[in-house]
Amino acid sequence: MSFSFQVNSSDGAARTGVICTNRGEIRTPAFMPVGTAATVKGQTVEMVLQSGADILLGNTYHLMLRPGAEEINQLGGLHNFMNWSRPILTDSGGFQVMSLAKLRKMTEEGVTFQSHIDGSTHVLTPERSMEIQRLLGSDIQMVLDECTPYPCTKEEARISMELSLRWAERSKIAFSGQTDNACFGIIQGGIYEDLRHNSLEGLKQIGFDGYAIGGLAVGEGQEHMFRVLDSIASIMPVDHPRYLMGVGKPADLVGAVLRGVDMFDCVIPTRSGRHGQAFTRYGTINLRNARHAQDPRPIDPESNFEPSCQYSRAYYHHLFKAEELLGPILLTWHNLRYYQDLMAEMRNAIEAKGLGVFIERFEFDQARGDLTSIG
Amino acid sequence: MSFSFQVNSSDGAARTGVICTNRGEIRTPAFMPVGTAATVKGQTVEMVLQSGADILLGNTYHLMLRPGAEEINQLGGLHNFMNWSRPILTDSGGFQVMSLAKLRKMTEEGVTFQSHIDGSTHVLTPERSMEIQRLLGSDIQMVLDECTPYPCTKEEARISMELSLRWAERSKIAFSGQTDNACFGIIQGGIYEDLRHNSLEGLKQIGFDGYAIGGLAVGEGQEHMFRVLDSIASIMPVDHPRYLMGVGKPADLVGAVLRGVDMFDCVIPTRSGRHGQAFTRYGTINLRNARHAQDPRPIDPESNFEPSCQYSRAYYHHLFKAEELLGPILLTWHNLRYYQDLMAEMRNAIEAKGLGVFIERFEFDQARGDLTSIG
Repeated sequence: MSFSFQVNSSDGAARTGVICTNRGEIRTPAFMPVGTAATVKGQTVEMVLQSGADILLGNTYHLMLRPGAEEINQLGGLHNFMNWSRPILTDSGGFQVMSLAKLRKMTEEGVTFQSHIDGSTHVLTPERSMEIQRLLGSDIQMVLDECTPYPCTKEEARISMELSLRWAERSKIAFSGQTDNACFGIIQGGIYEDLRHNSLEGLKQIGFDGYAIGGLAVGEGQEHMFRVLDSIASIMPVDHPRYLMGVGKPADLVGAVLRGVDMFDCVIPTRSGRHGQAFTRYGTINLRNARHAQDPRPIDPESNFEPSCQYSRAYYHHLFKAEELLGPILLTWHNLRYYQDLMAEMRNAIEAKGLGVFIERFEFDQARGDLTSIG
Repeated sequence: MSFSFQVNSSDGAARTGVICTNRGEIRTPAFMPVGTAATVKGQTVEMVLQSGADILLGNTYHLMLRPGAEEINQLGGLHNFMNWSRPILTDSGGFQVMSLAKLRKMTEEGVTFQSHIDGSTHVLTPERSMEIQRLLGSDIQMVLDECTPYPCTKEEARISMELSLRWAERSKIAFSGQTDNACFGIIQGGIYEDLRHNSLEGLKQIGFDGYAIGGLAVGEGQEHMFRVLDSIASIMPVDHPRYLMGVGKPADLVGAVLRGVDMFDCVIPTRSGRHGQAFTRYGTINLRNARHAQDPRPIDPESNFEPSCQYSRAYYHHLFKAEELLGPILLTWHNLRYYQDLMAEMRNAIEAKGLGVFIERFEFDQARGDLTSIG
């Protein structure tokens, strides 16, 4: 087993650590940029590396449809295909089947669906999901689960969670024998704390290398999300990574780290970057707004990172107005770095037992907004 | 006067040299990537530098409309605006007024037109074009000319060329007093050799830092273009740079260098890169073509440049099929490097008095096509 996790320091429920994989170390708490279709949108791998990422996420659903898992395997695996040599975590495909595919049919066996790209029919079972992730060469494979929709009744959430548990067991069996990579279970149960507890207990009995929290950030709001985390993070295994899937905005990451989460992935920094929204210490900036047309200030005067300090807000405004590719390229790069810097600052704060002070400052700065005068 | 040009070596009509400007040296023969709207489309400035470019071109027409010449000047000039510290040549705006603007009205004074972006009315005169280029901070300003359309009668070509000559004189007068940068004249006259000669004679009497050949590559074909070059390149001043505007494909560059041209600009490598076409030693490759879907070979196995050797043709095919931004980014980067490598190889061949051998090899390789076997 070449996968390991070690907690290095803690501050309350929050902790720092290192995940070791065959392809390198991941400093936690970690943010994983999303490389949907074998590319982090608008970024070269060099840019992703320079942003500070230790690991990125690949989407099984997108890759199985185009170019195909066997095709990528023939081309040397996902790492070779996209020229990324550090760790990759792959999701199971279940979430995107629910949000993107057409004509879905769920059975105990798995889910049959039609591709949103060309309408072709595909089947995803726990066994096939694990096989696809193995073919891709994933360093961390996720069990196939059903992402419980929100809102739903407690009974619906229970039935869905129990199906996910049975699929988790089949996923683990399908994974068995692999020693070069890891397999994570996924806690479901919606916003119902006792269902979340039951889900976690079931997963612990199966036994996984890490435990993810799924089915949050699907519209329930930050308050529900933090309540669920308060309820289950503390009883998740201390010696395994805790991964909050699909989260989130900067304040979500901060609140989740405070509650003991180690790993995150989210499209927000990349998607926002493509649409002209910058994340900064002092809140977000919409660079499409006309008030930036003659603003000579960089996005972040305190930074020394090229896209954050070398270009004026006026230049970004111009690039987005002119629909130039360089706007999304540079702003995605900036946002990814903002996210990585936020994680690094939290790791430093935890090591110094100062996460509380850090969060006070973070919330003060975010609320202050972008009020510094021009010039 | 901080602008100078020195010929270092020659081989027949072809020559190598160095243009010195306040912002750095330009090795000739030189290819200038086009930075239309204050960005080389899809490239960071670091990528443009890594491709090997000494200088890039900015478009007066695009920049005067958006964000505006005075606006860029207020933001520290075009170099500062786009974070490019090496030389920039700006065109006069005349060519794009003819090809893009609406409701054009030509008079002796200049041209009135409506913006293709928002329909607003603008006036471009020789004096205003030179002022805009000065406001941008251009290192090499081009006189305003009328790009003679093709086809046209000899009488039309003569009238147009004579107007361009009068505008060239007004441009030179408007430029006078500037000592930090250079001003180039533009030879017009269509495909009529005696008109080209008259145009050149008129420009020489006015006196410019360099001489450009305009109004070619507008549909007349390579044969006409080379015939015009054969006729005028040899009588263009030896001690000033010769710039063939808007040219071209690799074979056009090679033929023009052979005939004594020193500078080129063209959107072909960038535009082709955005549309999936790669330039290589062995001809072009359309990476959208299905035959590349499982091709593990890089675009150029003989290269050590990241986009040329680190990604399979299958990966490029995937990126273009999935409409991922990274496809245009990486392929533009590859194409720019191909163009710069071609110029560097020609410079080396000229210095070694071996341009003829180089061209034989170039034509043989291009004609051979991409026939190497897979694997």
